[in-house]
Formats: sequence, C-alpha cells, structure tokens
Amino acid sequence: MNKIKMLYEGKGKKLYSTEEKDILIAEFKDDLTAFNAEKKGSENGKGDLNCKISSFLFELLEKNDIKTHFIKQIDSKNILCKEVKIIPIEVVTRNVATGSLTKRLGILDGKVLPFPLVEFYYKDDALGDPLINDEHCKILGITENIQELEFLRSQARKINTILKKFFDDRNLRLIDFKLEFGKDAQGNIVLADEISPDSCRFWDKNTNEKLDKDRFRQDLGSVKLAYEEVLKRILS
Amino acid sequence: MNKIKMLYEGKGKKLYSTEEKDILIAEFKDDLTAFNAEKKGSENGKGDLNCKISSFLFELLEKNDIKTHFIKQIDSKNILCKEVKIIPIEVVTRNVATGSLTKRLGILDGKVLPFPLVEFYYKDDALGDPLINDEHCKILGITENIQELEFLRSQARKINTILKKFFDDRNLRLIDFKLEFGKDAQGNIVLADEISPDSCRFWDKNTNEKLDKDRFRQDLGSVKLAYEEVLKRILS
Repeated sequence: MNKIKMLYEGKGKKLYSTEEKDILIAEFKDDLTAFNAEKKGSENGKGDLNCKISSFLFELLEKNDIKTHFIKQIDSKNILCKEVKIIPIEVVTRNVATGSLTKRLGILDGKVLPFPLVEFYYKDDALGDPLINDEHCKILGITENIQELEFLRSQARKINTILKKFFDDRNLRLIDFKLEFGKDAQGNIVLADEISPDSCRFWDKNTNEKLDKDRFRQDLGSVKLAYEEVLKRILS
Repeated sequence: MNKIKMLYEGKGKKLYSTEEKDILIAEFKDDLTAFNAEKKGSENGKGDLNCKISSFLFELLEKNDIKTHFIKQIDSKNILCKEVKIIPIEVVTRNVATGSLTKRLGILDGKVLPFPLVEFYYKDDALGDPLINDEHCKILGITENIQELEFLRSQARKINTILKKFFDDRNLRLIDFKLEFGKDAQGNIVLADEISPDSCRFWDKNTNEKLDKDRFRQDLGSVKLAYEEVLKRILS
C-alpha cells in the first residue's frame, strides 16, 4: 500500500490516500504544538515514538472490543487505517484534575476526581476548541442524535477503564486523555486519531513526574526521554 | 415586616433578614455591572424599575404554576421573598444567538436557534462564571442528583415558553435570559433572584432595538429609557 495523495495535514499527523478506497496512511510528525498552536516545536523521533505507542494501544483496545480506525503499523512512523469522517468533538476524559480544568473550575491541581469526568470540546482551532454541552452539539450540527453523544461518553469511559488499568500495572498514572471518533464508510462510530503522550497525560506512580506533552508545554525538558520511557513501560 | 440585618450584597440586590424566620427582604440596587463586574456604573431609578418588572414577572410565573421565592412587592425597590439556599448555577436559556455564545461557538449574531438552548454556568465571580456540564456539577459538589439538573432545565424551558409568549404579545423578542434557583426551607427548588432587563435580553420586534443591559454593556445610551419601555410594555 502506497501514499497517493496528502488529504490533510494536522498538528501531529498527515493523512494520505492509498490505492485502496476507504484506506488511508497516517504519518506521525515530529512537530509539537501546544496552547492551540501558539507554542510550536519539534522533537526528532517523536513521530516514531507516537506511532509505536498509538499502534500498541489501538491493538490493545481492539482486543478489548473497542472498534478503532487502526489496521496496522506499516513502518516506523506510518500506520494503515480506515478512512473515517471525524466527528468534530474532542472527547476528554479526566481521572485527576490538572491543566485547563483546574484553572477553569478552581479545582486543586492533582486532585483525584470522584469519578472519571468526560467533557466535550468543539474541535475548532479558530475558536480555541471551546467546551460544549449536548445541546450545543445539536445546534452546531454535529449530531441530531443524542444517543451518539451517549455512545461517545460510554466508549470514553470503557477506554479509560482499560487504559487506566494497563498503565497502572506499568507504574504510570493515566491522568487524562483526549480522544477523537469518526464514522467509517458503514456509518459505524470508531475510535480514530491517536493515543500517545501528545494526547494523554501520564504521571509516574511513585514520583508524579510528568511523562507527556506537559514537558513541552511547561518547558520541563527531556520531552523525548519521557516519550521513550512511556514506550518502554508499555512494552515491559 | 422590617429589615433587621443585611445578609448579603450582590451586584444588583441586597438581602436583609426580617422579624420572620425564612422570610427576607430583597432591595434592588441602582448599580449596573457587566463583564464580570469589570465595567461598573449606576442608573438612578433602575432599582425601582427592576423591582417592579421582577415583581410582575414572578407573579405571572406563579399564576402559571412556576414556584418562585417571591411573596410580594412592599415598596418601590423592595420585595418580600422566601429565604432560599441559592444553587450556584446560572441557568441561561437562549432563543437567539448573541453575546458570549456567538463569540464562543462562532454562531452568527441574531441567528434564531433551532430550539431553546439551556446552558449551565458555575456561579463563581472569581472564575468568571465558567460554562459547566452535568458531570462538572457533581464534581463541584453542586448536586449529587442529576434529576435536579433535569428539573432546572425543564423549569427553564417552561419559563421560556411562558415569558416568550408574554413578551411576543407586547412586541418584544425574548432573546435570552439568566435564571437562578434556590432550595427553600422544605427543600423545594424554586425560582429565585430576579427577572429584569439586567438578566434578560429584549429586542424590539420591529426594529431589533436592544432594550436591556446591553445598552450599558455596549455604551448604547438611554439605559433607563429602555428599562422604562420594557415596564411600559409589560403593563400594557
């Protein structure tokens, strides 16, 4: 399978059409962006790490009956995936308060939430990905069907249960993560995008050291080392 | 019934205890604030107008089976009301997109929404009253009971139906409005706070002239005249 034409370039990935209908190649980029792309950088090898981490986690989720766009990893920074129409909602699940949640609602950084909080953000860079509720989703034309939103929430919770346990066994706390879903050619809603230290927050269970994109956001240094550590623990 | 002790001073009202347990006096102030009190002003007689308008509308809602904190107007700027514990949610209902909604979600100013949108904002000045979803309400300790949030939404929709019709008959478009609810001594959730051009947006049906606090927010002038016009139409 070969790249035919670039269909889309996002902040972390490029998407290419292939010889086969409904099958794409996603290439993971070394670029790093934060704060709605106001902060930009690059980390040599980050694309490879995220490609490997995402591939592993998509396979893990598939084994746990979560339908995803993932087909297989084809080389160090490229995966084969089903073409989906992305639902423009960033589904954020939080086990521990940090980042924007603490600022927005005045919750103490590091506070363990009483249950996994699921939030929807409207995927629109120009608007800064604003928080939305179910009625906003209808008004924005994202869906007419509240059941679809319930499905996104329930998938997010199931994925959280699977990943939280998986990382806990590897001495990593899954603090929060962002998912994107899409509709495949048959209209099924499947998990898409990526699952990586770009889209998740991981803290070391013993030291609470941050092992994710916060190292870039907060200029903590050793970004690549952190991503390598996450991969090492995943494979351990 | 006399004012005994000031219990609370908000941006638009002062609350006093009375000789009677669970009965308060609310005094409507002439002060005007906007943008989370970053902009401040005063309009002589505004308190009287809001007192009269709120009293009329609370009575209208009571006649339509909406339970409120309102007992009666006692003089030009004071009402008698039941003491309630305010639920710290600003319940905003929108028929037409304007103000923060257009900025936040990129919806055209003046667009008639396909259905009345109900939003919850966390009543917290220091945080700038952020938008919240039902799960945030649980995490913030506002309620353990999602049914209570459904009740707030259904009351907001009922009140919207009543007020929209009432103002439409008086050549005013009810664009959006903010409600606050509280729990009375028996634990019943009742409508509280005020309903006035400070908390509602009214546009003239023929000219779309703004007849509400946006005249103050946007420095359009004739603030008091606009409030007087709303009262005049209410009494017409």
